[in-house]
Amino acid sequence: MSGPVVTALGGGHGLSATLTALRFVTDEITAVVTVADDGGSSGRLRDEFGVLPPGDLRMALAALCSDTEWGHTWRDVLQHRFAGDGPLGGHALGNLLIVALWELHEDPVAGLDLVGRLLQANGRVLPAAAAPLVIEADVSGLDAGDPTARRVVRGQAQVARTPGTVEAVRLDPADPPAYPESVAAIRAADWVVLGPGSWFTSVTTHLLVPEVREALEVTRARRLLVLNLEPASGETEGFDAARHVQSLAEMAPRLRLDAVLADPAAVEDEGALAEQAARLGAELHLSPVSRRGAPGQHDPLRYAAALRDILYSPRPAR
Amino acid sequence: MSGPVVTALGGGHGLSATLTALRFVTDEITAVVTVADDGGSSGRLRDEFGVLPPGDLRMALAALCSDTEWGHTWRDVLQHRFAGDGPLGGHALGNLLIVALWELHEDPVAGLDLVGRLLQANGRVLPAAAAPLVIEADVSGLDAGDPTARRVVRGQAQVARTPGTVEAVRLDPADPPAYPESVAAIRAADWVVLGPGSWFTSVTTHLLVPEVREALEVTRARRLLVLNLEPASGETEGFDAARHVQSLAEMAPRLRLDAVLADPAAVEDEGALAEQAARLGAELHLSPVSRRGAPGQHDPLRYAAALRDILYSPRPAR
Repeated sequence: MSGPVVTALGGGHGLSATLTALRFVTDEITAVVTVADDGGSSGRLRDEFGVLPPGDLRMALAALCSDTEWGHTWRDVLQHRFAGDGPLGGHALGNLLIVALWELHEDPVAGLDLVGRLLQANGRVLPAAAAPLVIEADVSGLDAGDPTARRVVRGQAQVARTPGTVEAVRLDPADPPAYPESVAAIRAADWVVLGPGSWFTSVTTHLLVPEVREALEVTRARRLLVLNLEPASGETEGFDAARHVQSLAEMAPRLRLDAVLADPAAVEDEGALAEQAARLGAELHLSPVSRRGAPGQHDPLRYAAALRDILYSPRPAR
Repeated sequence: MSGPVVTALGGGHGLSATLTALRFVTDEITAVVTVADDGGSSGRLRDEFGVLPPGDLRMALAALCSDTEWGHTWRDVLQHRFAGDGPLGGHALGNLLIVALWELHEDPVAGLDLVGRLLQANGRVLPAAAAPLVIEADVSGLDAGDPTARRVVRGQAQVARTPGTVEAVRLDPADPPAYPESVAAIRAADWVVLGPGSWFTSVTTHLLVPEVREALEVTRARRLLVLNLEPASGETEGFDAARHVQSLAEMAPRLRLDAVLADPAAVEDEGALAEQAARLGAELHLSPVSRRGAPGQHDPLRYAAALRDILYSPRPAR
């Protein structure tokens, strides 16, 4: 197959859905994964070992596993979570494998590449930054008495489920070093795909890593932003689709986009969204990509079709 | 190569040394592993999940890994222990992998076979019993005032390091079900190799599982008992080599042996040992099998040579 060289940025289930769909479209996939997760199994492993959170890296690798009995078997093993609430309960085996490999190899990507070999993965998975990140958000609406009062909410898990409105997001440390091969993969791609996913804690997080933001700004790759199937939830309560695109412009004013993909069912005001996309240089693509009967989940083949239509489109003359 | 069909029984480092040596001698190896361990990582996993102790099974699989970059890489990963003393500290990754596979597959051997495929293992690893075992020993010499007084010491880890003299050993439950394929492997072999290893907690433990003992008594295979390099330590303090052989006769009076292998440096009284071996029907083979400069460790090639001399010997006419 081969196909365009695609670097997909994100984290969690959103990135996993993109990778699953991309496999129908191209063989040249690199995933760049945010490393700010501090909840669940990943959070416990950060606490115990001070390592990068492995969970989103594991999910991305699982999404790229070979479509064989061997690949599926090891994907299921790595995705398996231990039962119960003991010391191991809730840990995904793949997270533990990745941490063991990080204890054995100095370069975190050497361990990820070995998991990729085990899964016979169709592509590569890299961390966005070389050290674990902490997200901090200014959130309004948490005080019943004063809706404009802001509070600082710290940590991805807390920010992702805040019932308030996220007014600003930053990282601690503010200027973390990017993982060099991730920067290189953004610069060398034909297309960069950003999103979908938890908007402030998985997707736009990448723009907070200065070298990643800069690579996204200067790459010769075309840039596709994929909006969520259910835009308004948790951290983005009250945000419509256009407001999601606008948040990128606020965080990275020099960032230009080539395409914005949205499911029409998740767009309230198509005109406003197209206008906001155009302000960043992007054409709006509306395409139904959700699974029938499960509107919050991506249909791999419909999402693949929508991605193909965009990624294989001719580059417009300048 | 092929070679004789060998089933090796034991546990821990002793079984691992035997398997490492056997690989130079035959391609037809099955390991039957005792499942009474209750210390360290295995003990913690028994406590948390009620599973068979995976540690000795993991070590046996590691010993059988393919002699390739892939095999060595995954062997090292499975043998890796997490650092520190947190919830994961001290756990071997391979133990966690095996427990995850046991949560995914009902048959414990399906999981062990999958680890074997990962390691491209030269042989198969089976548990002796289908449920975790508890060892209980009557131990004398623990009361300074009364050297004949007996106390009950419970659990493999405790029995293995008792400073007293083990007078009797039993299992709780007393009549555990054997793993059927282990019984079949003992019955179908050309040779069964028992030992070396922790005498009461890894080696003779097999004789306490009724169906395993019976299979050892009635198999058409020839039977080799391998004595330890350092016979007197911990649970067998004060036992000479002949006393080790005698202990088998006491636990399984109907068991016949064909050969006993010992390192001459570990035999104080060759005549007494040969006589005790003959009482069980066995010829004594003395052969230096320890590593030069590390007398407590097996030299894989010298041990392999000694095994080859015995396993390839013609079956005597009846």
